[in-house]
Amino acid sequence: MTVNRQIILAKRPTGMPGDENLKLQEGSVPEVGEGQVLVRTIYLSLDPYMRGRMSAAKSYAASVEEGAVMEGATVGQVVESRSGDFKQGDYVLCPGGWQEYSVNNPKMMRKLDPAQAPISTAVGVLGMPGFTAYVGLAEIGKPQKGETVVVSAAAGAVGQVVGQIARIQGCRVVGVAGAEDKCKHVVDAYGFDACVNYKDADFRDQLKKACPDGIDVYFENVGGDTFDAVMELVNDFARIPVCGRIAHYNDTEMPQGPDRLPGFMGKVLVKRLLIKGFIQFDYAHRGPDFQRDMSAWIRDGKVKYQEDVVDGLENAVSAFQGLLQGKNRGKLLVRVGEDPTLN
Amino acid sequence: MTVNRQIILAKRPTGMPGDENLKLQEGSVPEVGEGQVLVRTIYLSLDPYMRGRMSAAKSYAASVEEGAVMEGATVGQVVESRSGDFKQGDYVLCPGGWQEYSVNNPKMMRKLDPAQAPISTAVGVLGMPGFTAYVGLAEIGKPQKGETVVVSAAAGAVGQVVGQIARIQGCRVVGVAGAEDKCKHVVDAYGFDACVNYKDADFRDQLKKACPDGIDVYFENVGGDTFDAVMELVNDFARIPVCGRIAHYNDTEMPQGPDRLPGFMGKVLVKRLLIKGFIQFDYAHRGPDFQRDMSAWIRDGKVKYQEDVVDGLENAVSAFQGLLQGKNRGKLLVRVGEDPTLN
Repeated sequence: MTVNRQIILAKRPTGMPGDENLKLQEGSVPEVGEGQVLVRTIYLSLDPYMRGRMSAAKSYAASVEEGAVMEGATVGQVVESRSGDFKQGDYVLCPGGWQEYSVNNPKMMRKLDPAQAPISTAVGVLGMPGFTAYVGLAEIGKPQKGETVVVSAAAGAVGQVVGQIARIQGCRVVGVAGAEDKCKHVVDAYGFDACVNYKDADFRDQLKKACPDGIDVYFENVGGDTFDAVMELVNDFARIPVCGRIAHYNDTEMPQGPDRLPGFMGKVLVKRLLIKGFIQFDYAHRGPDFQRDMSAWIRDGKVKYQEDVVDGLENAVSAFQGLLQGKNRGKLLVRVGEDPTLN
Repeated sequence: MTVNRQIILAKRPTGMPGDENLKLQEGSVPEVGEGQVLVRTIYLSLDPYMRGRMSAAKSYAASVEEGAVMEGATVGQVVESRSGDFKQGDYVLCPGGWQEYSVNNPKMMRKLDPAQAPISTAVGVLGMPGFTAYVGLAEIGKPQKGETVVVSAAAGAVGQVVGQIARIQGCRVVGVAGAEDKCKHVVDAYGFDACVNYKDADFRDQLKKACPDGIDVYFENVGGDTFDAVMELVNDFARIPVCGRIAHYNDTEMPQGPDRLPGFMGKVLVKRLLIKGFIQFDYAHRGPDFQRDMSAWIRDGKVKYQEDVVDGLENAVSAFQGLLQGKNRGKLLVRVGEDPTLN
């Protein structure tokens, strides 16, 4: 237990990050200070926001420094505790980063009960992605019964939950995804009314047909062509929670003209659109509501979820590249170490 | 009283409307049907939204038909009434249009009391422009004490009221206008903390200096360079009520690239901006609150106002051109006929 494999941000990426940017190295297991807790990583959550942390651009959270271990939420098991709040063997959610062992401040940790839900869901449907879906709809999208809700990256960790919550609320739900099997899955497994593949040549026609009454809520995860197509179909008073723009995270320059920004703002005015960017932690006060509602929905079978588990920290970089390219199927996790709850 | 001078939309304009688009003609005074009211126009309100009504483009209200009298809110006096709700001599607010006489449905009319406020204010500070300022701040901008509020077209009918309400609410208020005397006026007469001329070469620097703590609310009336400059200074969680985009109303094509829309949406996300288009009539339920608050503010001297009155219907077209070019000083009105309340 003296080696701690970890992936560091060796060099900030331009465009798609690769092995020269994210390097696997062998560090040592850190000392556990008074009041701290040493955790063995079981699952590392991979999420699109991490691309932003690799960049020096000012954003809502500080960048990871070059040479530092990449940040990330993890589910793990306590190896050694010098805090009264946790004991050896506890399963926990913590910001462990891309590594096998991390030392954590108990204030940043939450105990998990494997009897209540699979521990991996603490970084998925019952964690940040699920909460993102929940508050984006509840606080911004505010879908009303009978309205049409469109969600991009529909098969992803956030999108799959968005669509299912909107269904529970009595909306027509249309997904947009980038593969036939993803589209089929969200319709068959999650009960979406339709799902359209943005890679199809007649994507815009398909989307229009799937939304005969226009679009009232667009949960924005991707940007790009999907955003443009949706903007042609938005109804007056449509709401657009802006959660992510994964199609642009590797952009290195502004696209060619014409400049569509003035025309966009004209549409915002004429159609009285609401556009609102958000990060889930802005709505932390809704956490208890979310845990209560989502636990009930999962228990009652109203919300289902899919996880895409990649084995081995050494595969984290290629898995993350795949995430930015839409190759994952559901919530992407790296199993960094053995999960004893599966035995 | 048999001639009714009126201005018709002869031909939809491309770019700036002129005499070939808006033609003065002599019509006849219409017959007054059962239940209707004939009104002599005293003041015609000229407002930027009218440019939209001249266009065939789909918008929040139907276009004026070619050959029809241009629409517009008017203040007038009842000449003949076949309704029990109004009598000859009453002063009224009604949708009379660009003409000397109009026949109106009583449901679209409101009686005015010249003893309470100058009748012209019914299309100004106590009318649509004042209400626009009121609801844009109350329902979208939601300025908090100590925040910085920027308003463009600061000396205009809406802008001057926006700034004064934000001052009442304890904000730092910075105006943007297009002439030195306008900037001086909003500071001296309305108590804005600062006002910057967007035509100055160092406009962006001046705006930055005027907003040392960034911008929390931007009340958007103009678009163009002002919008771009503001976007460089917005704080996290800034709110942008989009009320108008007068710099673009005569645009005939999209500006050259690069395409700034994706970058804009990136900023919306990272800074968690709220962008919301609105039209005052979406918030008609706030009308009574507005009348109560604004009447009190005017009575207490907390809100002042400036009107720019042009004499003669024959000068309406050039006055409207001037409005689109920022030549007016305060709320623009055409005095179409004698105002007996001034005697």
